[in-house]
Amino acid sequence: MGMIGGGKDAFIGAIHRIAANMDGMVELVCGALSINKDIAVDSGRSLFLPEDRIYTTYEEMLEKESQLPEDKRMDFVTIVTPNFAHFAPAMMALDKGFHVVIEKPITLTLDEAKQLKEKLSEEGLVLCLTHTYTGYPMVKQAKEMIQNGVIGKVRKVSVEYRQGWLSKQSEREGNPGAAWRTDPKKGGKSGVMGDIGTHAFNLAEYATGLQVTQLCADLDIIVEGRQSHDDGAVLLKFDNGARGVLMASQVAAGEENNLILKIDGENGGLEWHQQEPNTLLLKWLDKPTEMLRAGSPYLSPIARHNSRTPGGHPEGYLEAFGNIYRNFALTLAARINGDSQENTAIEFPSVEEGIRGMAFVDSAVASSESDKKWIDFTI
Amino acid sequence: MGMIGGGKDAFIGAIHRIAANMDGMVELVCGALSINKDIAVDSGRSLFLPEDRIYTTYEEMLEKESQLPEDKRMDFVTIVTPNFAHFAPAMMALDKGFHVVIEKPITLTLDEAKQLKEKLSEEGLVLCLTHTYTGYPMVKQAKEMIQNGVIGKVRKVSVEYRQGWLSKQSEREGNPGAAWRTDPKKGGKSGVMGDIGTHAFNLAEYATGLQVTQLCADLDIIVEGRQSHDDGAVLLKFDNGARGVLMASQVAAGEENNLILKIDGENGGLEWHQQEPNTLLLKWLDKPTEMLRAGSPYLSPIARHNSRTPGGHPEGYLEAFGNIYRNFALTLAARINGDSQENTAIEFPSVEEGIRGMAFVDSAVASSESDKKWIDFTI
Amino acid sequence: MGMIGGGKDAFIGAIHRIAANMDGMVELVCGALSINKDIAVDSGRSLFLPEDRIYTTYEEMLEKESQLPEDKRMDFVTIVTPNFAHFAPAMMALDKGFHVVIEKPITLTLDEAKQLKEKLSEEGLVLCLTHTYTGYPMVKQAKEMIQNGVIGKVRKVSVEYRQGWLSKQSEREGNPGAAWRTDPKKGGKSGVMGDIGTHAFNLAEYATGLQVTQLCADLDIIVEGRQSHDDGAVLLKFDNGARGVLMASQVAAGEENNLILKIDGENGGLEWHQQEPNTLLLKWLDKPTEMLRAGSPYLSPIARHNSRTPGGHPEGYLEAFGNIYRNFALTLAARINGDSQENTAIEFPSVEEGIRGMAFVDSAVASSESDKKWIDFTI
Amino acid sequence: MGMIGGGKDAFIGAIHRIAANMDGMVELVCGALSINKDIAVDSGRSLFLPEDRIYTTYEEMLEKESQLPEDKRMDFVTIVTPNFAHFAPAMMALDKGFHVVIEKPITLTLDEAKQLKEKLSEEGLVLCLTHTYTGYPMVKQAKEMIQNGVIGKVRKVSVEYRQGWLSKQSEREGNPGAAWRTDPKKGGKSGVMGDIGTHAFNLAEYATGLQVTQLCADLDIIVEGRQSHDDGAVLLKFDNGARGVLMASQVAAGEENNLILKIDGENGGLEWHQQEPNTLLLKWLDKPTEMLRAGSPYLSPIARHNSRTPGGHPEGYLEAFGNIYRNFALTLAARINGDSQENTAIEFPSVEEGIRGMAFVDSAVASSESDKKWIDFTI
Repeated sequence: MGMIGGGKDAFIGAIHRIAANMDGMVELVCGALSINKDIAVDSGRSLFLPEDRIYTTYEEMLEKESQLPEDKRMDFVTIVTPNFAHFAPAMMALDKGFHVVIEKPITLTLDEAKQLKEKLSEEGLVLCLTHTYTGYPMVKQAKEMIQNGVIGKVRKVSVEYRQGWLSKQSEREGNPGAAWRTDPKKGGKSGVMGDIGTHAFNLAEYATGLQVTQLCADLDIIVEGRQSHDDGAVLLKFDNGARGVLMASQVAAGEENNLILKIDGENGGLEWHQQEPNTLLLKWLDKPTEMLRAGSPYLSPIARHNSRTPGGHPEGYLEAFGNIYRNFALTLAARINGDSQENTAIEFPSVEEGIRGMAFVDSAVASSESDKKWIDFTI
Repeated sequence: MGMIGGGKDAFIGAIHRIAANMDGMVELVCGALSINKDIAVDSGRSLFLPEDRIYTTYEEMLEKESQLPEDKRMDFVTIVTPNFAHFAPAMMALDKGFHVVIEKPITLTLDEAKQLKEKLSEEGLVLCLTHTYTGYPMVKQAKEMIQNGVIGKVRKVSVEYRQGWLSKQSEREGNPGAAWRTDPKKGGKSGVMGDIGTHAFNLAEYATGLQVTQLCADLDIIVEGRQSHDDGAVLLKFDNGARGVLMASQVAAGEENNLILKIDGENGGLEWHQQEPNTLLLKWLDKPTEMLRAGSPYLSPIARHNSRTPGGHPEGYLEAFGNIYRNFALTLAARINGDSQENTAIEFPSVEEGIRGMAFVDSAVASSESDKKWIDFTI
Repeated sequence: MGMIGGGKDAFIGAIHRIAANMDGMVELVCGALSINKDIAVDSGRSLFLPEDRIYTTYEEMLEKESQLPEDKRMDFVTIVTPNFAHFAPAMMALDKGFHVVIEKPITLTLDEAKQLKEKLSEEGLVLCLTHTYTGYPMVKQAKEMIQNGVIGKVRKVSVEYRQGWLSKQSEREGNPGAAWRTDPKKGGKSGVMGDIGTHAFNLAEYATGLQVTQLCADLDIIVEGRQSHDDGAVLLKFDNGARGVLMASQVAAGEENNLILKIDGENGGLEWHQQEPNTLLLKWLDKPTEMLRAGSPYLSPIARHNSRTPGGHPEGYLEAFGNIYRNFALTLAARINGDSQENTAIEFPSVEEGIRGMAFVDSAVASSESDKKWIDFTI
Repeated sequence: MGMIGGGKDAFIGAIHRIAANMDGMVELVCGALSINKDIAVDSGRSLFLPEDRIYTTYEEMLEKESQLPEDKRMDFVTIVTPNFAHFAPAMMALDKGFHVVIEKPITLTLDEAKQLKEKLSEEGLVLCLTHTYTGYPMVKQAKEMIQNGVIGKVRKVSVEYRQGWLSKQSEREGNPGAAWRTDPKKGGKSGVMGDIGTHAFNLAEYATGLQVTQLCADLDIIVEGRQSHDDGAVLLKFDNGARGVLMASQVAAGEENNLILKIDGENGGLEWHQQEPNTLLLKWLDKPTEMLRAGSPYLSPIARHNSRTPGGHPEGYLEAFGNIYRNFALTLAARINGDSQENTAIEFPSVEEGIRGMAFVDSAVASSESDKKWIDFTI
């Protein structure tokens, strides 16, 4: 693995490295870790990278790595730069023949996402989009139970994602993560929807297996002086007729990272809270609610494939992230070994999810600016 | 107290009697407990009413009671019939000089609610609307903290009210409560919004002290063959600029009576769950979340006035209901004694809340049927 | 109902009145509400008692009430004085032919409890001991499930009862409830064990249907200067070979009234928390834990008999207390009507539980003072 | 890192590898992963170890590794064999100059633990004992708050550790982990106390900073036919006069890994649940309970050093384990670099904790077999 972005003090780069390291399947071998050369070099050294594989631009890295013998060069590149700086390195990496891992949202615009898809298809390469929350075993369990009809036809989907870290105008107080996220040129059309709304949207579609067809959005800038949305709510219609409500806020004072999913079906319901991710509530019309727990023997093989410990040894965010890397690494390994991959447990979000996420942001913004109630979800 | 409706097996009548009894301030002295004469008589006897005060029609009861000497006749009447049968007995009761307690929603239509208001004003009588959930001490604590600026300006209000008891078409399976609630002629324009949406709406306005000015609703009939909405979501705008989301569902399979309120302010947030009503979460931007607990000495005098036990001795729905009766009874007692009531702790929902509730249903239905995104909240 | 003790500002008297009122089956008709005559009279008036039935000593009350015609006099007397003042009025009440409700612990000493039993048997009267916590529907559900073998043979019982209100030496700061409870002459041999240890002990025996046969106790005075135990732990052996641990503390700073029961059986386990009393956890060896909820249709008839509202309308401490009064009142009514009582749902704690409670305190104190590990539980 | 034990399907070996990998500071370079040669070889290959560093006995590994040049050979060895097979490889590793990581309990007997201590002191090497639960940031936060007097003098410590996986006689059903743990020759004197009681004991002493001085134990074999204790309760006295209760059970049907710590102080209390490890409850006498959350900026530097993600991105068991490895690795790195280690955040359990753990098992067993109530805690 080579890494673009993710130097010292960059939150998400460190998370990617831990997730990639965790299962001993991926090794960081090179990096262009910052656009600031000093930081790039310092960061590379502190990660014990060999001096000649500490690069100061991604172009240099991709160029030089592509010239290394096949068994020496990195297998894939991970892009953990701010949103506006995803597309160019991703295109170049694909061009040079490297598989790509990208932090979400996939690109700055829907059009870029579509170009990536085309490029991937031309090159026959693999892209992994780190929608972490679908890496949790209990989310996978929920998905499978719905697929198997356990709760009957899905009727209603509620997903709320509440954070409080942008309650003040932190972007003016030297918080660089806040600064680029609230700058439409760097973070995209809608700060809150790009940053966390896409996660909520992806989680809802992933778990239910449904697709949004229409939506009605109210996106807002709550903190005075801010340049991008920091709060929003979206009414949803799904392709099976189910209704949904998606809320995303970064000004919910005192909330950490409170992502909650509730799915109501004809015969039962499911509820999952990211902050206590090892429990999945299964509600019944006429029987007691059951608490399904990660690591339990009664879970599906897919849920068990995506955990490492027995019940009561809590796994968390890093393990969910690790599941995405592990499944991506297993997929690459299968390609290298020429295995035909039959194992449905080995899955991870890809460019399709990236495109739908960008389309969600576009459609939500269009709806929010429209007087019309329902807007078609358009790709 | 005299009671109209609420005979044997009627859920809410028994609740009203317990709530009224609880504090030893109110006594049931007569009733017209059912439109079925046998049930009316049987129910009256089983409640130890004197034979001559077991009435078989409300007209008879109001007529005869009004002819009793002042110190013998009932002080007020409680109306716990289905929604369509609130208005006529309420008007007649006021006409005969009785104060009135009405189960929510106040009437079948907004117009009826307005007529009640006018009549009340003419007669100088008191009406109490049993929006039970505002009777909880921790809701009152939340209201007061917001009033006092503890969390700063309110920015976002989320209220969800989820039940599952209409997941099947129970109205065809001999459930009389389901039958009239899902019949628009008896339950009103929108089943779910009249039955529980009004509670959620009232709770949001009560706790925040704000008023809804615009809304955008999606109301649906989820269960095939049903005549009235059983699920809905409404985007809200409040008069201080805050945004809100209200969800109400009676087809959330496996949910009991799951009413949750979350309020986000500039400096902190509040969260309350009706099913664990003795805890109020107070979230801060940069300090640990606090768990305020009913019955605690650090609560406001108003919250303490509305509880009976010290912390850790859980009070519940019946006590919240009892608080409404107790405050109503204290108000009547003050009138009788000629006290000028200064105690702001002694409050309960009245005709104003009833009118706003009916206007909410009307506006939500209008919005749901409109292609326009935002509809003004109109009374 | 006549009441001895329970005047203004006495916590438990007010609780008894609410519990008795709740279901409209019991009416307070007279009282000797305080040993302070002024308080007795004031309290009686504020409760709307007729002047001639406001008594200033319990002797006067029992004497005069017994001379009233049978249909006028009170049916039973409730004794809510401090522990040391239970026995004499109870004996006199029985002597005068009145049934008795007593707040726990039943008496100051085991010997007194035994005398009460004998007297009851001579007079053919009924005594009800208000071990409130066994009045909760989910405790009754647990008891029945164990009886029916749902979790198999009980192997281990853990019961902890933690309060913090005696963390400081409140008895010196004008808290009268703290003063008598920590005075061995008024509260009994062991403050904490008499006050709350007996509840925990009773709950453990009630729910499991087992009896303690041996115990090993460590009782302590944690707060310097206090005269009576404020903390203790007791290892238990039950008559089926099961082991147990009982903890009771009144110096667990910040705890309200945290009574938790955990029962482990061969095939499953049960867990109940008094502060969230409407949920009973049912754990299985190889299936998800189930959350049984009060008011649910799948509960046993006994649990349903002991609740008033459907699921999600939380009942609490006052309703649990009310269940004891209601079952007591139903029992008296059945006696008056000459019904043979067959309904096993109609039960409440009696003198037997009182005797076992006092024996528990005695045995725990003996054990705590002994160098020997195990002490037989002796009555 | 070299590993002894931990081959395919051995639970704890895989956990150690993930924990060691996580932060990119430790690399597995060799192993003697099973006493079964085929498994040893297969396991080594599946972990991508070089063929010449896949050993089939620990003696061979320690011998050969010690002959490699200093910059090639492993820095330390991790011993994850069953309890009875800790001592010999640990002694030999120290003899050959390798630092040692040992899974708890440190050895089979107290005497072996003492010998290890002496050997360590002779060789000047470092031993790390993986008492995982003290690696959690919120446990470290609790420890520090107590040290700083936040809750005042500790008065009572309750620690319960409940598992259900030995509810049936799994040792006869081909569960090898159950088999050696319940065999006193392999698992030690007391199965439950060695396996999880030592964790609970260590956690209580670690968090409070206190030491047990006396105890009174009831250890039992609940499952018929079992050879070793599977359940026990221990009353404790601490060196500051505080009292404690420790419960450990492996027959609590339906429990996963439910370790709960409650500490009561003069002014407040702390409560932590391993299964929801990111929350620490801080209870106050007269203020609302606070929920301290891992990853929050208001935590102590030590707690923050021991976490990787911001609040709301849950970390779990593997991260707690990783903290022990990371602190151990940082300590070795500091020795290699000749840094004088001043950072008190960089700590991990060592041979002292191992000795106290073995002494706890010995004392508990002695007490359980004695008729005397209190036994001195003896090392």
